[in-house]
Parts: sequence; structure tokens; C-alpha cells
Amino acid sequence: MPASALILAGGSGTRFWPASRAGRPKQLLALAGARSLLQETVDRLAPLVATERIWVSTSAALGPAVREQLPQLADDRFVLEPVGRNTAPAIAGALGRMPAAAREGALAVLPSDHRIADPEAFRDTLAAAFEVVRARDGIVALGVVPRFAETGFGYLELGAEEPGPPGLRRVARFREKPDLETAQRYLASGRTLWNAGMFVFRGTTLLSRLERHAPELAAGAAAWAVAPGRAELYAALPSISIDHALVERLDDLLTLPLDCGWDDLGSWSALFDVLPPDGDANRSHGAAFAVDARDNLLFADDGTIAVLGVEGLVVVRSGGAVLVVPRERAQEVRLVVDRLRAAGRTDLV
Amino acid sequence: MPASALILAGGSGTRFWPASRAGRPKQLLALAGARSLLQETVDRLAPLVATERIWVSTSAALGPAVREQLPQLADDRFVLEPVGRNTAPAIAGALGRMPAAAREGALAVLPSDHRIADPEAFRDTLAAAFEVVRARDGIVALGVVPRFAETGFGYLELGAEEPGPPGLRRVARFREKPDLETAQRYLASGRTLWNAGMFVFRGTTLLSRLERHAPELAAGAAAWAVAPGRAELYAALPSISIDHALVERLDDLLTLPLDCGWDDLGSWSALFDVLPPDGDANRSHGAAFAVDARDNLLFADDGTIAVLGVEGLVVVRSGGAVLVVPRERAQEVRLVVDRLRAAGRTDLV
Repeated sequence: MPASALILAGGSGTRFWPASRAGRPKQLLALAGARSLLQETVDRLAPLVATERIWVSTSAALGPAVREQLPQLADDRFVLEPVGRNTAPAIAGALGRMPAAAREGALAVLPSDHRIADPEAFRDTLAAAFEVVRARDGIVALGVVPRFAETGFGYLELGAEEPGPPGLRRVARFREKPDLETAQRYLASGRTLWNAGMFVFRGTTLLSRLERHAPELAAGAAAWAVAPGRAELYAALPSISIDHALVERLDDLLTLPLDCGWDDLGSWSALFDVLPPDGDANRSHGAAFAVDARDNLLFADDGTIAVLGVEGLVVVRSGGAVLVVPRERAQEVRLVVDRLRAAGRTDLV
Repeated sequence: MPASALILAGGSGTRFWPASRAGRPKQLLALAGARSLLQETVDRLAPLVATERIWVSTSAALGPAVREQLPQLADDRFVLEPVGRNTAPAIAGALGRMPAAAREGALAVLPSDHRIADPEAFRDTLAAAFEVVRARDGIVALGVVPRFAETGFGYLELGAEEPGPPGLRRVARFREKPDLETAQRYLASGRTLWNAGMFVFRGTTLLSRLERHAPELAAGAAAWAVAPGRAELYAALPSISIDHALVERLDDLLTLPLDCGWDDLGSWSALFDVLPPDGDANRSHGAAFAVDARDNLLFADDGTIAVLGVEGLVVVRSGGAVLVVPRERAQEVRLVVDRLRAAGRTDLV
């Protein structure tokens, strides 16, 4: 049975405002190239996963924009959540909507808003994970080899080695957002991986585990999957991530280390780190002119940005709005979005 | 004979880029209010100078935009220079185009790209200057009472008092752009005024003085004035300011002190100084949101500007371009314009 992929594309967020908006979230943006993060997520599956074996879960509201970006996928490959209920209902619901044959085979659940610099390394690890779940009934997290002591991610503490491809291990413990000291200890130990939200399993494995650990959620998602027009069934599901609903509770979670230049692009500042620098260490997207200016991120979705004599700034021009923020405060863009909402400028958020 | 005014609106410049462009220079911009600097220049003449006694000199290229801003003026009140030749040809040519009756009466020549906070004080001084030139054959410079040791302006050193309205004096010496030490001495002396390019005279007085000090220019401008279709006559005139061609050479120049909140708005930084501050000392025009940000000038001709955590910046959004520059370097905007020109982005300059 060839492997399938379920891409999660229903997320929303404010960290890339003003380029990202309610109707145009991060995964739909071409932040670090000509293709959107969602398109790159689909593109990098080839040739490992055939196009006709790719499913996309997104919200009803985002459906048209998501489909427009993926014309190569048939209409029935898009599973639309009537309302947002986080990843556990999205995954369970989409599995229920898939043909039984796909559900019974190896399947990868993949976020659509991350960047991967080395798609070939990614596919190699993904192929190994598919082999694992074909050989045994298990759930494999693809764990990113940590590069710094990040406190915003979840960590997988490595347990015993398992028979299978090199690096396959049990996860001894799942630790969400550690404090800085713990994160530093984790990094130094060499015995943790970042949880990147990428999981591989047979669909039937995941559903049976979910029935055990979250029976109401599993039953509700299954009921909606056979009557997808009944939005109230989906709306009644709890809003919960697959991490909290299931993965953290497993005592036999497996992991494979993933070393493929993964970046979650969590902010404008993270984008600065992955774009190529000019001679003055400025990074730009679109038409930008920097005169006697250093270390700036200049992101022009439309029009032209010119800066003179400034350093370490993020300057974004997109869809009627301009944002200027120091790089080290780019994580706080939400404050601007909150202010705009409070001022009734919902046209901009 | 009622007094007339000749407004000089042919200038160009780069200091307010990107709001100002080749086809939309500073005088056409509403920088510090709802009306453009040119419109305010006309507005503030009422009721002292009747609308039908106002003439406007501008370039052929700017003619349509200038007329559009001043629908209250009859078409024959606009004098179009075929090519730019600075203020001496513009004034001499426009005087030649005026009806003889207007040329023989009191007349004020006024720049159109400055700001005046107190129009009533301006009109009081202007009215006094009109009285002076009605009573005697002379040229009166309206001299702005200096507020700081500016090195970019011309200074009028005060000479002997003259009979007439309070403050009327001879100008002992005309000094262009002094060094800082001289400017500081001037400021401390209380015996200098800034040359603001505002002169009052009878047109016939000015033309006869010009015939004496710059006979070829006077003859050439007169020849063009009777054959304005012959652009080559105008093009043959030297490009020279009225200051250099005439005013500096006069040994009987008069001056009246002008204390009316005059500002030449020489840069974005100067505009910051005249706009009203918000609670965090930010100044804005158009839709702007400042979060945890201080002392910024946020100028949105279109769209919305949002800043977070920045201080002392100029941020401008206008006509497809964004500019970000520290306030203290706003004088250097020309460097950006030069860079855009070099890159072939003439659409933006």
C-alpha cells in the first residue's frame, strides 16, 4: 500500500501581520521563495507520496484560497472543517473522510506552515518512518534535531533504541515549552528532539489509540465524517491539539531524528534568519532599497520599501498596511493586531 | 490701486520623497493640514488680496496640477514657464504677462511651499509693506524673526531705521548661508532677519531695477512676455534666483520684520516639529497606529502605518513607496532618490 499524507492547513495566526491576515494565514504566504509554505509542503512530498494520495485539511473559510493554491489536487482531497477545533478533531475527522484503503496504509500528518531547507533529507526520514509503521503498529514522531535552547517548542526526551532504521527510539517523555534552564540542559544533553508536529502512523492505528485515550472525540469525529454537512457535530468537538489529546499520553511513542534544515518560521525575525543577506546583511523580499542601512528585513508584498540609516528593523508593506518593528521585538506583532482590532480596523487583521 | 500677489509655484525638490515626486512637488502636498501648502498660500491672502488679483507662476509641466488645486483662479492668472529658469526669470516673465494696471500697483511675490501658523500676523505685515511701496519707490523684503542659528537660510543684516511703519529698516547687508558661528552671532545680535523669499514692490519698480542690474535678463523676459508661445526665448534666459540677480545687489533694500510662525518645512524632520504630538510624542498624518513607540513621524498618504517599539523614526507611505529613516537623517532623503534614479526606478521619483 503506497503511503499517504494529510496536510494540516487550517491554522491562523498574527505573527506575520501585515502579510498574514485572517483570510490569508502564514501557510498561504510565499515568505521565503516563489511558492507558499503550503505549496512547498506539497511539492516536497514528490516523488515519495503521489499527488493523488495527498489530503489537505483546512477550514471552510480558507477552503477556496487553499484549493486555489493547489490546483493539482482533486476537489475531494480537501477536507473542510466547518469551524476550527484544533488538530485532534482535524486529523480524526479527515481520517474518517478518507477512503478506507488510504486510512489503513502508512500516513504522515504534516503542518503546512514550516520551512524545510533540505527536502531530500526530509523525504529520506519520512520514507524510513513509513517503513516503521508498515512493519509495526506504532506512531512515529519526526523529531527535529535541536539547534538552540528554544523555550517555545515541545521536546521529545529520547528513550531506548528500537529495532528498525538507524536512530529509531522510544520517546521517554514529552515536555511542552520548558523553561530556559531546562531547554539549555536538553540542548546540551543531546538526548532530546523538537516536536515539529509531524507524525507518521497507519490511520487505523491512530484512530484506535484515539478511541482509547479520547473516546468521545473519536466517536464525535467519526459521526461527523459520515455526515459532513452536519456542522453542529463538528462544532460540538472539543478544541484540542493532537499533542494534548493523544501524543503526550502514549507510552509507546516512537521517534526518528530529522535533520533537514527545518524552521518553524515563528516570526519575522525567524524569516530574517533564513533569507539570503545582501552586502550589508539586509534581507529583502520584493522591491527594496537600503541606503547606509544594515541588518534589516525589508518585505514588500507590493510597492517599494526604501530605508536610509536604519539598523535591525523589520519593515513590511502588504495589503494596505505598513509595519515597522525592531527585529528583537518582532515576536510582539500581536500587540499591533490587538490594537487594530480594538480600533475597529478589522479590515486590516 | 488694490494690491496684487504673485505666487511662485514652479519649484521641485526631493526632501519630502516619497510624498513629493517630480510631478507632485512639496507645494502641492497637504503636509500639515487638509489643504496643500500652495492652497494655504492663496487662502491666507484673503481678505487682504482679492482672488482676482492673485497670479501664479509655475512650470508648464506642473500647470494642470497647480490649476486643479486652485479652481477659484481664472485661467489667465496662471503664468506657465516653458522650462524652469529659477525665480528671477519667473518673476520678470510673470510681471510682463500681467495687465499694466496690476504691474503698476503694489505687489507681493510669495513662495508657495512654506507654512505660516499665524495668517493674521502675516497679513498685518504684508499690509504694512503694501503701504510702504505705495508711499515710496522701494523693494521691501519680509524678514522672518530668527528662532535658531540656521545655516541653510539667507540673512538680512539690519541697517538704519526708515520712516514708515514700526520696524521698517534698510538692509545693511545680505548674507547667504552663513557658517554656524556667524549664524549664532546673528541670532544673538537681534539685528538680523531670515530671508524668506517674500518681497513687496510695485511691479514697475522691480522691472526698472532689474533693467539696471540685469539688463539682458530683463529684456529677454520682456520679449518672452509678449510672445509666450516662443519657448526658446524663455529657455535662453539665465537660470538665476531673484536674490542673486537683484535683491543682493540693491543698496536700498528695505525690510519689515515678520513674526507669524513661519516655517520653511525643509524636511520630514521639520514637519515633525509642527504637527501636534500624541501622548507618546508621535506625530501622524493619515491612518497610523503606534504601540509602545515614541517620537516618530508617521505619514500615511494612503493605507495604514503601524509601528511597535521604535523611536525617533520617520515612516512615510505614499504612492507605492515606503520610506523609513531616522528623524536626524531626514535631510538626506536625496540619497534614496539618487539610488532609485540610478536603479532606473524613475516611476518612483
